[in-house]
Amino acid sequence: MTNWKNLDTLDSYKALKACKGSVDLTTVMAGESGADRAKNYSVPMAEKLTYNFAAKEVDDTVLEKLAALAKEAELVDKFQELYNGAVINTGENRLVLHQMTRGQLGEPVKADGVDKRTFYVEQQNRIAEFANKVHNGEITNAAGEKFTTVVQIGIGGSDLGPRAMYLALENWAKKNGTFKMDAKFISNVDPDDAAAVLASTDVAHAIFVLVSKSGTTLETLTNESFVKDALAKAGLDASKHMIAVTSETSPLAKSDDYLAAFFMDDYIGGRYSSTSAVGGAVLSLAFGPDVFARFLNGAAAEDETAKNTDIRKNPAMLDALIGVYERNVLGYPATTVLPYSQALSRFPAHLQQLDMESNGKSVNRFGEPVDYPTGPVLFGEPGTNGQHSFYQLLHQGTDIVPLQFIAFKNSQIGTDVEIQGSTSQKKLCANVAAQIVAFACGKKDENSNKNFKGGRPSSIIIGEQLDPETLGALLAHFENKVMFQGFLWNINSFDQEGVQLGKVLAKKVLAHETDGALKVFSDLLNI
Amino acid sequence: MTNWKNLDTLDSYKALKACKGSVDLTTVMAGESGADRAKNYSVPMAEKLTYNFAAKEVDDTVLEKLAALAKEAELVDKFQELYNGAVINTGENRLVLHQMTRGQLGEPVKADGVDKRTFYVEQQNRIAEFANKVHNGEITNAAGEKFTTVVQIGIGGSDLGPRAMYLALENWAKKNGTFKMDAKFISNVDPDDAAAVLASTDVAHAIFVLVSKSGTTLETLTNESFVKDALAKAGLDASKHMIAVTSETSPLAKSDDYLAAFFMDDYIGGRYSSTSAVGGAVLSLAFGPDVFARFLNGAAAEDETAKNTDIRKNPAMLDALIGVYERNVLGYPATTVLPYSQALSRFPAHLQQLDMESNGKSVNRFGEPVDYPTGPVLFGEPGTNGQHSFYQLLHQGTDIVPLQFIAFKNSQIGTDVEIQGSTSQKKLCANVAAQIVAFACGKKDENSNKNFKGGRPSSIIIGEQLDPETLGALLAHFENKVMFQGFLWNINSFDQEGVQLGKVLAKKVLAHETDGALKVFSDLLNI
Repeated sequence: MTNWKNLDTLDSYKALKACKGSVDLTTVMAGESGADRAKNYSVPMAEKLTYNFAAKEVDDTVLEKLAALAKEAELVDKFQELYNGAVINTGENRLVLHQMTRGQLGEPVKADGVDKRTFYVEQQNRIAEFANKVHNGEITNAAGEKFTTVVQIGIGGSDLGPRAMYLALENWAKKNGTFKMDAKFISNVDPDDAAAVLASTDVAHAIFVLVSKSGTTLETLTNESFVKDALAKAGLDASKHMIAVTSETSPLAKSDDYLAAFFMDDYIGGRYSSTSAVGGAVLSLAFGPDVFARFLNGAAAEDETAKNTDIRKNPAMLDALIGVYERNVLGYPATTVLPYSQALSRFPAHLQQLDMESNGKSVNRFGEPVDYPTGPVLFGEPGTNGQHSFYQLLHQGTDIVPLQFIAFKNSQIGTDVEIQGSTSQKKLCANVAAQIVAFACGKKDENSNKNFKGGRPSSIIIGEQLDPETLGALLAHFENKVMFQGFLWNINSFDQEGVQLGKVLAKKVLAHETDGALKVFSDLLNI
Repeated sequence: MTNWKNLDTLDSYKALKACKGSVDLTTVMAGESGADRAKNYSVPMAEKLTYNFAAKEVDDTVLEKLAALAKEAELVDKFQELYNGAVINTGENRLVLHQMTRGQLGEPVKADGVDKRTFYVEQQNRIAEFANKVHNGEITNAAGEKFTTVVQIGIGGSDLGPRAMYLALENWAKKNGTFKMDAKFISNVDPDDAAAVLASTDVAHAIFVLVSKSGTTLETLTNESFVKDALAKAGLDASKHMIAVTSETSPLAKSDDYLAAFFMDDYIGGRYSSTSAVGGAVLSLAFGPDVFARFLNGAAAEDETAKNTDIRKNPAMLDALIGVYERNVLGYPATTVLPYSQALSRFPAHLQQLDMESNGKSVNRFGEPVDYPTGPVLFGEPGTNGQHSFYQLLHQGTDIVPLQFIAFKNSQIGTDVEIQGSTSQKKLCANVAAQIVAFACGKKDENSNKNFKGGRPSSIIIGEQLDPETLGALLAHFENKVMFQGFLWNINSFDQEGVQLGKVLAKKVLAHETDGALKVFSDLLNI
């Protein structure tokens, strides 16, 4: 059994604190030293990805102390306990098994009377069979016509992750001939969301995926009703157009309202569910089950790297350690993810949920308040767009915001133009290379308005091309990074009690059981 | 003439610092006190919008000190100087006239030998005439067929603002019969961006708007070339499908490559250009010139409120003051904008640029380093989606992040369903009301994991419906807030020198004129 201790009680953390200010990026990233770091400060990931941390405020001494911290905090041992079925989500008394949706990392895990890996594979296979039947016309609408669009109805983890993954692979799939159906998403309880999506959808040829683990998510059930109205108006039988992704114990599981139901369970948190049936149904329908399987393989391969005790061979653990160093020792309150890939346009929004919902906590896993900052604010937009937007603050603002770049050598579609001697893809990559050095080294200028102090840390993940495997590996990397950071902060990264109070009060407002400020705001908003 | 002084040299700021911790939201927002605040701590905006700051950490004493700060910093006088044509953008030696694109706030301003208001109105009228001809079929493609889609090619301010405004009004226009053409946007230098947009566009019936003030923005010219290739491949004459929005001195201004050119000038910063020809061309084509004129009217009406010296009658100034109090006195490093409106899905991305690019500066307007934090990190996503994502950190994280809500009593489309006794629109509004109180008051729980400390400040802008006027007013509110904050921090909010270094280094990479780390990264990225 591992020991769960607060970060600030660890000797290695106290030693790490002494490193503050020891690495000046403007010096170490210049000249030969910078070249050496760029070559050597990198860790291979799965699927030919590389995590390069040359432009982070670390050197061999800091890395040694980070390694000691990883060991004292028993990070890999805790991961091992997790994938072998320990109750890591203590707040909700649950196992944490999202990694198992894509592979068997350790011992078989039995829960709810079944082998869980078998259960997840079974769901994946059931979805594959269903998707194949939709694609080959065995499952059609009442008129015997093929479905052409899949619409996911879900919110939070049932929306952001699958939507980001869909957008990430849409053009790749179109280029590679595996594109099967358009996917759309309805999430917000704002009635204009569902109304607009439905207005642009040929509902007669659409299959709807209702995603709710509990089967009680108010937004999702409300939007289901919206969809059913639209189908009824079109003279269609809703039960022939809808499938459910839910838990086996939910009211949706055995309802005749759905063509089929596919299952997840309590061991898959919403924000970790892209590789479960939650992502599986919509992505298998959109791109075919083979593409979804490749995505899972990439994630599984990356999970394997997270088992390594050597921080130079465990990119997620190293990324996590550096992030904690930046947050707790260097004192940076926010972080940004900047993919130089338009296909990853919503990947930062997914990571925003993944990270902030997992680690935005003030009590440790035993319910005791912690005395140190935990999860940072995370935001991001694709480069080069962000360069023309908020990078001004990142370069010259008064706060330092650590950066996480992502870039690929090759585009997905392959169509390109050469202007001023270079293709767009080369320009894209040149920009990210330039940004790393600009942020780290800065540039002195006598006009202080044009002066760049530098000293702004970044890392970069570099890949060959964004495809199903690399996307899976990327996703797993960040999931595992967040998990390791939760271990370091000694918090439970797998519950989300902070979302409850708002729900309770919203119900009171709708029941008109309010007083004080809540009553006044209800009136002001005409509720 | 006004005096430009650093924030920390102002007596009223020193007095304000003494207020730190004087307002405990969990107390003042409870019971009758909370009801009183919710009723009274509100300021009318234009277009029936209201700015409510009941849940901010202010009371009458703090407000008094904020008013003194507004006066000592001469905020309204500085605004007056700005709109009367002073060189407020000192770094670039330019006037700042974006407000004049929508109205005459003060004296006539003459520059470049012309009356600038006349110039902006003329451009608006030229665009209106052009758009009307496109809509009524006087301007068509070579085959005499009507254009059905407008595609904006631009990046940064030429993309984020117009795109956010288009999305904000798309459903409103469809519902209200003013929708004329689909709009699409190409921005990123990532070749997959242009390739994907073009693949989904019927180029034979598309009109492209090339937007670049200088006519030299590399991303934009590269993407223009992409578009020209696509048009050529389709056997079409590009010059019959493209218009330019640029400055009169740019190489694009008089080129035969465009059907027409519409003009902005150096006094309109990119991030402030949505109400200029930059937003005007695409929005007038998409929704008709009348809708664009209504949008401008809303902005102009809101600008008028920013002239008021009374902080209780000047919502942008009050919002700015409270923001500076939170940033500099209370020490909160990030802020979030949360529109409870799916139509505003990209409004936070626009504000992220507007705010972070304007005020992410470390030197004052005289080029001297400032000793206090300036612009914060800003991020946001629509509610209720965010509730199921990053709100966990906002409620229970270790840092306090001030919140800015936006909500409307009515939806845009009006289609709705009643579930559990309430419509989706009521649920949407109930949620935002609930969140304000949940964040402010919190809720004690013996299980510390379920405990909500509260004390998390928010404001809300409430409107009747998101329509062209309210959107214009909202936009102007935030532009003016950012301007007033820049005045308080004594920085130049209208240049962006921080984006230059990256551009310079990217060119070196493309020219293979690199060494050290930049050379290694260039190789790693296969450039």
